[in-house]
Amino acid sequence: MPEDNTVFVGKKPTMNYVLAVVTQFNSGSKEIVIKARGRAISRAVDVAEIVRHRFVSEAKVTDIKINTESLSTEEGPEVNVSSIEIYMTK
Amino acid sequence: MPEDNTVFVGKKPTMNYVLAVVTQFNSGSKEIVIKARGRAISRAVDVAEIVRHRFVSEAKVTDIKINTESLSTEEGPEVNVSSIEIYMTK
Repeated sequence: MPEDNTVFVGKKPTMNYVLAVVTQFNSGSKEIVIKARGRAISRAVDVAEIVRHRFVSEAKVTDIKINTESLSTEEGPEVNVSSIEIYMTK
Repeated sequence: MPEDNTVFVGKKPTMNYVLAVVTQFNSGSKEIVIKARGRAISRAVDVAEIVRHRFVSEAKVTDIKINTESLSTEEGPEVNVSSIEIYMTK
C-alpha cells in the first residue's frame, strides 16, 4: 500500500487527523491505515471511532495490529514504545 | 467468558496490570481480555506488549476490538469515550 494512504497520529488535536482520514476516503482511497505510537495510541482509536460514527458511516475497521518499536535517542539507550496500526476500508 | 479473565487497565502503573495478566495466565487461564477506555488505551497496549515480549513468550494477541462507549456524567450530558479490548491466548 502506498504511504499516501497512511495517517500518522501525533500530538495535534484529534479532529485534524479525522479530517485527514475523511479527505483520504473522499479522494477515492478504499483503504487507509491510521498509525500511532506511545500516548498517541488512544488518540488514534478516537480518530477511527469518530470517522466511522460521524463522517463515513460505511467505513469499517478491518484489522488492528499492535507492536513494539525500538527508538534510539540521542542520549544513548534505546527506548521501547508501543505502536498501533488501524486498517479501515469503505 | 467469565469476568475473572478480564483485566481492566486504568491509571495505576503499567506493571501493576502486567502482573495481573501474568498471574491470570499462570493460574491456568488460556484466554484473557485486557480492557481500557480513553487515555488508558495506550497503557493497555503497553501491557499486552510487555506481557508477550518479557513474561509470557508463548502468549499471542488473537483479536483487538475498538468501540465507543457513552458515559453519563453527574452534571448532565453524555460523553463518548473510545474503548479497546485486547484478546490474548497462550
